[in-house]
Amino acid sequence: MATGQSMSEKIFSRKAGRRVHPGEYLMLDVDVALGNDITAPVAINEFRKAGGKKLRYPDRVVLVPDHFAPNKDIKSAQQVKLVRDFANEQGVKHFFEVGRMGIEHVILPEMGIVRSGDLVIGADSHTCTYGALGAFATGVGSTDLAGVYLTGKAWFKVPSAIQVRLTGKFRKGVAGKDLVLYLIHILGVDGANYRAIEFTGPGVASVSMDSRFTVSNMAIEAGGKAGLFPVDDVTIAYEAERGIKVEPFAADEDAVWERSIDIDLADVPPMVAYPFLPSNGKSAAEAEKEKVKIDQVVIGSCTNGRIEDLRVAAEILKGKKVAPSVRCIIFPGSQKIYRQAVEEGLASIFVDAECAFSTPTCGPCLGGHMGILAEDEVALSTTNRNFVGRMGHLKSKVYLAGPAVAAHSAITGYITDIREGA
Amino acid sequence: MATGQSMSEKIFSRKAGRRVHPGEYLMLDVDVALGNDITAPVAINEFRKAGGKKLRYPDRVVLVPDHFAPNKDIKSAQQVKLVRDFANEQGVKHFFEVGRMGIEHVILPEMGIVRSGDLVIGADSHTCTYGALGAFATGVGSTDLAGVYLTGKAWFKVPSAIQVRLTGKFRKGVAGKDLVLYLIHILGVDGANYRAIEFTGPGVASVSMDSRFTVSNMAIEAGGKAGLFPVDDVTIAYEAERGIKVEPFAADEDAVWERSIDIDLADVPPMVAYPFLPSNGKSAAEAEKEKVKIDQVVIGSCTNGRIEDLRVAAEILKGKKVAPSVRCIIFPGSQKIYRQAVEEGLASIFVDAECAFSTPTCGPCLGGHMGILAEDEVALSTTNRNFVGRMGHLKSKVYLAGPAVAAHSAITGYITDIREGA
Repeated sequence: MATGQSMSEKIFSRKAGRRVHPGEYLMLDVDVALGNDITAPVAINEFRKAGGKKLRYPDRVVLVPDHFAPNKDIKSAQQVKLVRDFANEQGVKHFFEVGRMGIEHVILPEMGIVRSGDLVIGADSHTCTYGALGAFATGVGSTDLAGVYLTGKAWFKVPSAIQVRLTGKFRKGVAGKDLVLYLIHILGVDGANYRAIEFTGPGVASVSMDSRFTVSNMAIEAGGKAGLFPVDDVTIAYEAERGIKVEPFAADEDAVWERSIDIDLADVPPMVAYPFLPSNGKSAAEAEKEKVKIDQVVIGSCTNGRIEDLRVAAEILKGKKVAPSVRCIIFPGSQKIYRQAVEEGLASIFVDAECAFSTPTCGPCLGGHMGILAEDEVALSTTNRNFVGRMGHLKSKVYLAGPAVAAHSAITGYITDIREGA
Repeated sequence: MATGQSMSEKIFSRKAGRRVHPGEYLMLDVDVALGNDITAPVAINEFRKAGGKKLRYPDRVVLVPDHFAPNKDIKSAQQVKLVRDFANEQGVKHFFEVGRMGIEHVILPEMGIVRSGDLVIGADSHTCTYGALGAFATGVGSTDLAGVYLTGKAWFKVPSAIQVRLTGKFRKGVAGKDLVLYLIHILGVDGANYRAIEFTGPGVASVSMDSRFTVSNMAIEAGGKAGLFPVDDVTIAYEAERGIKVEPFAADEDAVWERSIDIDLADVPPMVAYPFLPSNGKSAAEAEKEKVKIDQVVIGSCTNGRIEDLRVAAEILKGKKVAPSVRCIIFPGSQKIYRQAVEEGLASIFVDAECAFSTPTCGPCLGGHMGILAEDEVALSTTNRNFVGRMGHLKSKVYLAGPAVAAHSAITGYITDIREGA
């Protein structure tokens, strides 16, 4: 008797042209191959070393210099130049210069470059973000990317899948970041190694698109190859806004799951992940009791730099000022979101609150630039990783949270739970 | 028979409590002592090495971490931390954290920290900016700054003065940057060595406050110790806006000038300074003929990051997009100007034109961060220096211009004169 398939199995089966099973190795054409200013130069060099002259599919190649952009130093300027020259030489139309678009994982969905059902690789760990749209998207190394440049193909092992069955609804002030930190706390940082995480159940419908991007973005932080949401009315409406028509797409009712986890969204508290792992989650209420003093708050990035995130932060920061001891740096994920934040009055609220509101860049998230920590400094950040030295000095510390906890904490100067009425 | 005095001589005489003459050496209390994240750490270390425990006058000390802020790397983060800790320890209330205020030479006038008649030193070459307000303000080394930390005093040689007598009015589209590049072209980069440059004449009244800041800012680029404008109705109105009352103040009619230069403002064309000296000026019309291709345009900094500059750029960029080959990075000089640019719709125009609109920082001007040039890249910048390697790679080039030429050039992709109607 045939059993059903997960979304991942369906995507791999469609690409392979036959029904495939978890554990199988496949060599498949990819729909999109992403590189950035750190990883693409390595891929380009490997491509050339392997004798590569012309990209197999220039239209599937996307190059986004976003990590140290605007160029932080001569080295990064040289890296971007190498990528830019390659894009020009190869006729890559999806090369996005400083000031044009924004952070890779925010702009690819925004521009409709990645879509439901796509098979996507990116030389960046957080490529899994596009799972929010119902794509199978996963991070690879730069040499795999070079392989796609040459052949259009990459190898995949069809992953088994972990079902996360959502019921209920978020409480007020709780959103995607809290859910994913809660889930990673359950799974552990390797709990989903080489698995796809797939979200199902009646709770999914109430999770906004921006929250889904946050959740899928951090699938890798539990070791997941991908984190997929079904394509439902929320996805269809999101894509329709940019003129894209997609069909409903979900795992079969009788899909075989390696493991199933039930989460009632109403049980998810505002969360904080302690140094030095995203799985070190506690509720913000618990964290608040420990009076953790912070030097810097970062709100933004590919994880939480979308308009909903900025709205949440602005609602809390409106009419307030960040604590004198805190630097608060806010990075929208894209120029489009920046523009919308200006239009909606959010940029003004941030500047009035004495936050730096910056042009999009990955900078502070990875200790790249624009908000690096000195020795013993502590940051609370809406980004995705809190590893040792992630944001600067080896003796600095990063706590992770969503924009609501981050904004409240920026005002008080220590890690603070959300408050009633905001 | 007594002769009159220049503004500089008057300020030094008042501070000395007697009539002083050019060439005299004086040890005087300063009103304001400025340091930034590059220079203050050196001064702080010297202060400590000399046995310094407490600042002589903490209220006269201003500390602005603006050069690599938000922190570009661990080293700069450590520098800022050192300055911050010092400010806290010494009770320096004029310490301005990331996101709070902005670039030193923009915020000191904006906040009324520097005023007409003040004697100001700053461990930064462009401290001369405050001459626009009728202050004698000059750049010093970090050890001189340490001396002021210890004693409140610095030594000065009373400078002789070069009079720049202005008549007429700027043609449409011409402003302070064009005037100062025109003047430096006449004087040469050492033509005003250890002199004060003082602007006089009927043309002064038509030069806006923002243009005056640009002109005074670059006095050092002709070697000038200071560049002073009289305190007239324009200054009085500017200061009144921030609740400060100042009295008219000017050089005497019969002041003795070492040299006098007459400039009819109507003769000043839109200017471009070629690499590698600010004195390598040509008219933008001449420059346009040479079809100089540019990779980056920078609009902002302590030289041209004021609201008038942004308005000029926005008027030109409105409804346009920057050339595909150009990165255009716009930095307001302060959070206040940023806020105003948002309010007036300028930020939206910049983002729609596909410019990066960033939080205030000195970054790209000095090759610090946020817009560094790779090998062979060319920038057109509204900043103040175009020395070899100033903005990045030793084989990169910087051309200087005002915001009108910069904005026009951003659209075309090569150095372009201003156009009728914009």
